[in-house]
Amino acid sequence: MTGIQEADHHQSVSLDLLKQKMADFAKERDWDRFHSPRNLLLALVGEVGELSEIFQWKGEVPRGLADWKEEEKLSDVLLYLVRLSDICGVDLGKAALRKVELNAIKYPASKQYTTDSDGAVNMSD
Amino acid sequence: MTGIQEADHHQSVSLDLLKQKMADFAKERDWDRFHSPRNLLLALVGEVGELSEIFQWKGEVPRGLADWKEEEKLSDVLLYLVRLSDICGVDLGKAALRKVELNAIKYPASKQYTTDSDGAVNMSD
Amino acid sequence: MTGIQEADHHQSVSLDLLKQKMADFAKERDWDRFHSPRNLLLALVGEVGELSEIFQWKGEVPRGLADWKEEEKLSDVLLYLVRLSDICGVDLGKAALRKVELNAIKYPASKQYTTDSDGAVNMSD
Amino acid sequence: MTGIQEADHHQSVSLDLLKQKMADFAKERDWDRFHSPRNLLLALVGEVGELSEIFQWKGEVPRGLADWKEEEKLSDVLLYLVRLSDICGVDLGKAALRKVELNAIKYPASKQYTTDSDGAVNMSD
Repeated sequence: MTGIQEADHHQSVSLDLLKQKMADFAKERDWDRFHSPRNLLLALVGEVGELSEIFQWKGEVPRGLADWKEEEKLSDVLLYLVRLSDICGVDLGKAALRKVELNAIKYPASKQYTTDSDGAVNMSD
Repeated sequence: MTGIQEADHHQSVSLDLLKQKMADFAKERDWDRFHSPRNLLLALVGEVGELSEIFQWKGEVPRGLADWKEEEKLSDVLLYLVRLSDICGVDLGKAALRKVELNAIKYPASKQYTTDSDGAVNMSD
Repeated sequence: MTGIQEADHHQSVSLDLLKQKMADFAKERDWDRFHSPRNLLLALVGEVGELSEIFQWKGEVPRGLADWKEEEKLSDVLLYLVRLSDICGVDLGKAALRKVELNAIKYPASKQYTTDSDGAVNMSD
Repeated sequence: MTGIQEADHHQSVSLDLLKQKMADFAKERDWDRFHSPRNLLLALVGEVGELSEIFQWKGEVPRGLADWKEEEKLSDVLLYLVRLSDICGVDLGKAALRKVELNAIKYPASKQYTTDSDGAVNMSD
């Protein structure tokens, strides 16, 4: 990998790069045998649980979270999600871009939005 | 956005691009007021739950999953994770790359790995 | 508490007993201030994550699970669920009995059931 | 079942009663074949996700939750947990009582408690 590409990656990490790194990592350690879809899904649930534990006794927290040190937990969730998507044959980056486009049609920017007591988002003119 | 950049994005979607799209999406709809850290975390847990429901009655499934149609669920998890990371002030792509590097030190490629009955990964020479 | 009642409890622990024990526990330690609905929900998610970690690298496991030592994880999930229900003003035992009855109407014992590829249960005559 | 026992059950629903009802329910519909540990665990995660969706856009909510209608979600989580415990050979009621006792030793009522920024509970004299 050239220095220029490396610099680009650090500016803007792609989901393909993470997919490739996770695939290489698993191959080098013979971990493909552990990486079945449901194993990875349960590992993902475990990491989401760890993320939840960080927030569990805080009450509501402001955005920004000065000096937040928990970026490893967010990373763990992402890495298992990337790996699960790869094992499921899904191009996660493309799928996410498409979902943003679908959401833009479903929730037009011209509408007004509120949330109701069962957690649903409501739309009005 | 030029055609060339667009083509690049579709070849390799970056976490920064998704972050920006999610931020724009929220701003255009005045959804920043909904996007507190714990709201986003619970939304993420909800999407992980929907992903789990797909796999719940299947028994173990092979990788590949021919004709799998559930890439939207994987996308939903990713999009909330990207948004939560942004709100928490974390550069998710950089954090994930760094975590892969930390994992490579923690789990050397030269070792042998097994899993035990409580789900832990064991290392030996 | 008399010996007879104690024996009854050990034969058949009720949800009301657990609710009372959790309420007393919190009161004695001044933990009511921590036990808001969303705090308890996130704590529950955290425990479900720990339960998932136990199963994450196993592949499918047989029922029975000889010598399984993880009953504490199951208990932690239950205790937070009991406490969350209490804080939400729900009589969890009654609600669960009613749900079993609703399920019996929704899924008649006279039908045949299969599961399909998106995890749904299908019913036929 | 006599009327007296029925009345008792409605006053104080036991985990054993729910366990038995779930086992009967599964047997009558030939659902034992679906109820492997990991299937039930993923179903539990799915229900916890649905519970989280109720709370996701609310911001912090007060306890009490007047007119809360979501007791079915709490019940679904409980019923899968009861069934998973049964399949894993765990007496969930006894295990939960024991866990309360262990917690009482771990967190003495005579101490002062605070929570810190990573979600841990701290104890002091």
